[in-house]
Amino acid sequence: MFVIITYDVGEKRVGKVCKKLREYLDWTQNSVFEGEITKGKLKKCLSEVKKITTEEDSIYLYTIENPNHMTKQVIGKDRSFDQLFF
Amino acid sequence: MFVIITYDVGEKRVGKVCKKLREYLDWTQNSVFEGEITKGKLKKCLSEVKKITTEEDSIYLYTIENPNHMTKQVIGKDRSFDQLFF
Repeated sequence: MFVIITYDVGEKRVGKVCKKLREYLDWTQNSVFEGEITKGKLKKCLSEVKKITTEEDSIYLYTIENPNHMTKQVIGKDRSFDQLFF
Repeated sequence: MFVIITYDVGEKRVGKVCKKLREYLDWTQNSVFEGEITKGKLKKCLSEVKKITTEEDSIYLYTIENPNHMTKQVIGKDRSFDQLFF
């Protein structure tokens, strides 16, 4: 399945959350990650993220079971492409 | 159809882009908007956003034709709920 995860967490935890999500998904821009992932891996990912975050933090998870039901379009600069060279 | 729009634009244009997207979609958190919208309105929205942004800015558009094909889950605090009281 395909997921989009966006987060809004306390400044001190931004780096940790970003690093953790990067283990499972592709960084898109700012606080947005996306990618294909299995249910098992997603469960593991979220369980690990929950250990880092507090109740004041927000994690938004959009799940699209079949990636064919979604289209993605980038207008302007595709920053995830830049990332390939870092 | 349901769309998720995330943006990463120059500091000077953040407010303008945010204000424009708010006319058409619901703010979720940080630079993320979502909501149900018709093709016609989305076209108008993007056309107006393009007038504000430059080539250096990034707008990511995820489109899910049938909202039933997507699920949304909020972990932690739902910031879009706070917004209702502003």
